[in-house]
Amino acid sequence: MAEALAGFRPARRTPAEPVPVAQALHRVPAEPVAAPHALPGFARSTVDGYAVRAADTYGVSEGLPGYLDVTGDVSMGAVPRVPVAAGTAVSMPTGGVLPPGADAVVMIEYTQQVMPGTIEVVRPVAPGEGVVRADEDAAAGAELVPAGRPLRAQDLAMLAAAGVRSVSVHVRPRVTVFSTGDEVVPPETQTLHPGQVRDATAVALAALVSQAGGAPVYGGIVPDDAEALETALRAALPSSDLVVISAGSSVGARDETAGVVRRLGEIWCHGIAVKPGKPTLLAECAGVPVIGLPGNPRSALVVFRLLGVPLVHLVGGCTAPPPEPTVRARLARDLPSAAGRLDVVQVRVADGVATPVFGPSALLSVLTAADGYVIIPGEATGLDAGTEVDVTIYS
Amino acid sequence: MAEALAGFRPARRTPAEPVPVAQALHRVPAEPVAAPHALPGFARSTVDGYAVRAADTYGVSEGLPGYLDVTGDVSMGAVPRVPVAAGTAVSMPTGGVLPPGADAVVMIEYTQQVMPGTIEVVRPVAPGEGVVRADEDAAAGAELVPAGRPLRAQDLAMLAAAGVRSVSVHVRPRVTVFSTGDEVVPPETQTLHPGQVRDATAVALAALVSQAGGAPVYGGIVPDDAEALETALRAALPSSDLVVISAGSSVGARDETAGVVRRLGEIWCHGIAVKPGKPTLLAECAGVPVIGLPGNPRSALVVFRLLGVPLVHLVGGCTAPPPEPTVRARLARDLPSAAGRLDVVQVRVADGVATPVFGPSALLSVLTAADGYVIIPGEATGLDAGTEVDVTIYS
Repeated sequence: MAEALAGFRPARRTPAEPVPVAQALHRVPAEPVAAPHALPGFARSTVDGYAVRAADTYGVSEGLPGYLDVTGDVSMGAVPRVPVAAGTAVSMPTGGVLPPGADAVVMIEYTQQVMPGTIEVVRPVAPGEGVVRADEDAAAGAELVPAGRPLRAQDLAMLAAAGVRSVSVHVRPRVTVFSTGDEVVPPETQTLHPGQVRDATAVALAALVSQAGGAPVYGGIVPDDAEALETALRAALPSSDLVVISAGSSVGARDETAGVVRRLGEIWCHGIAVKPGKPTLLAECAGVPVIGLPGNPRSALVVFRLLGVPLVHLVGGCTAPPPEPTVRARLARDLPSAAGRLDVVQVRVADGVATPVFGPSALLSVLTAADGYVIIPGEATGLDAGTEVDVTIYS
Repeated sequence: MAEALAGFRPARRTPAEPVPVAQALHRVPAEPVAAPHALPGFARSTVDGYAVRAADTYGVSEGLPGYLDVTGDVSMGAVPRVPVAAGTAVSMPTGGVLPPGADAVVMIEYTQQVMPGTIEVVRPVAPGEGVVRADEDAAAGAELVPAGRPLRAQDLAMLAAAGVRSVSVHVRPRVTVFSTGDEVVPPETQTLHPGQVRDATAVALAALVSQAGGAPVYGGIVPDDAEALETALRAALPSSDLVVISAGSSVGARDETAGVVRRLGEIWCHGIAVKPGKPTLLAECAGVPVIGLPGNPRSALVVFRLLGVPLVHLVGGCTAPPPEPTVRARLARDLPSAAGRLDVVQVRVADGVATPVFGPSALLSVLTAADGYVIIPGEATGLDAGTEVDVTIYS
């Protein structure tokens, strides 16, 4: 699994497109964005108080206050009308423009009006105190957001503050999702014939693709037939950045998928030491990465979270995806595992205890009952009850 | 802060609306969804092999195989044509319908064709082995997904498998976001006059609202004027499930907001022991919760993550939000903190070390430079360098 994650690195990346900042949450900048001008752009008070020359306050104290003439006030959003000369002060709201001549702002709490037009100051300020510089939030040309990291709420705030109106981001990778199997019918099928199952995997894979920043495309249900699959895959490749095939569960159906993929490109690996998910296939066809997933929905979803989501990130230019939520918990019971194989164990979590949910891999209910999963690494031969584990929580 | 989170519990909940399953990711079911019929709906093989009567395999071994006549095969998605009688077996693919008469499936690995139409079986199976029961994934009427927990990918899979086509979910809470301040101008303003700042908060609050499952509504920029704010708030209340006001930073502007809110409803608290974010206001006006946030964007975003996001969840019926991503890291330096006040400290995280990012709360760059934040609880008077802390990672 580690080898597959580190080694299978298709070169494909989606191109850039401009999007308005207000629609750019979680989009991935294709290049760093630089500040068009200094921010905030003017020296600004950070407190309610009086703009002063710091030197006028040196040595003052409760016992020996300094006295300053108040020569004016600053209104929010307006240019100061009065400069600060020696021995004078100008009344300031938080966020106001520092008047010329002033180099600090004394908090109102450390002043008192002794008579109309005169204040006493009981604490000294150093130059720069109570002020942010004109370029303190960002110098002109400074990097506001890096490339490759999905934009967070505060990044949008910074871009808005700087007057950046649109960002160049990677186009969402188009991920075509195929389901295969003669028994699989569309989810909207009201009444099933015996032996039929509704396609449960496609809607869930599409959801995981969206969550990872991709744009899912339903490829439809393909029968267990090499020619039909080849036709479908050939048609999908030119308009896809990634293709996902949840292959039939039987050995024959799986071999068929591998055969088709081999005709259209190169198989990077077929079979991964993970449970569930052993028959996973990774390939590249005509420059498009292709993942073949196990046929049963539960294994398909487990493997897609581990291998597919990172590929969506990679192709979409996301080099710094946020970590998934995890909680630490103690195992309620022993978990056996074969060495040399990574095990993904579904668990419920309550009160700091992780209780495994077992069942055949054909059962989706094991996944819906779980709050998250625990990974038993390949080198381990199991974990003892009471072991503290990191549970990755489903969201 | 804990008191505010636990104590301010407005009764408002959004009503239910039906949405198609394919569009229901992260939506919050308003009621549990029950299985319309048993799943998978038929006894199903979980392996490639032979459907048998388990009793016919009792006592067999490598040394003493049992012999069975193969009387037919089962195709995927089709009704079995041949029942399994004593001494016979029917060839099965994974996922096929178990033929009548059979009660187990022997894996193909434990069989061998000894002549056309006859296999030997070298391992016994118990009844039920290699099979999932017709109602093993869900019995008819069983709960497929609970109310209140946002739907995850696997929940959509389960609903699709069960033929559920739409889910009754809570309407996304409409969250009206107001910015106030005479100095605040729309983010699309190309050139600023001295003293003006672009509205950075609204776009970021809108992003956090969306992330929490709400539908943000831009209320616009309101000048520092009680009458204007009252008019705007009055107009917004009937169409809002939650109102957020990022109030002016100066004491006067803040008091004005409180005055207006008091005229239209009841203030639950004004002032919270959190840094940054002390001047936060929580209120209810005409059945609509109202949050007054500090005026500077950084404090506003910090407080909205802590107090606003849980309110969006509450109003939107989400009783089990997934935890936020966290990583454990060691503090690079001492963090001082006043007891009796919760401190939110921005940090960068690299190689398991959390390095605080300091700066005046007027600076947005402190937030954009941070990877996440550390909470210093109210009862602590600081944390020592080297302390292991949980960092909540921004996403």
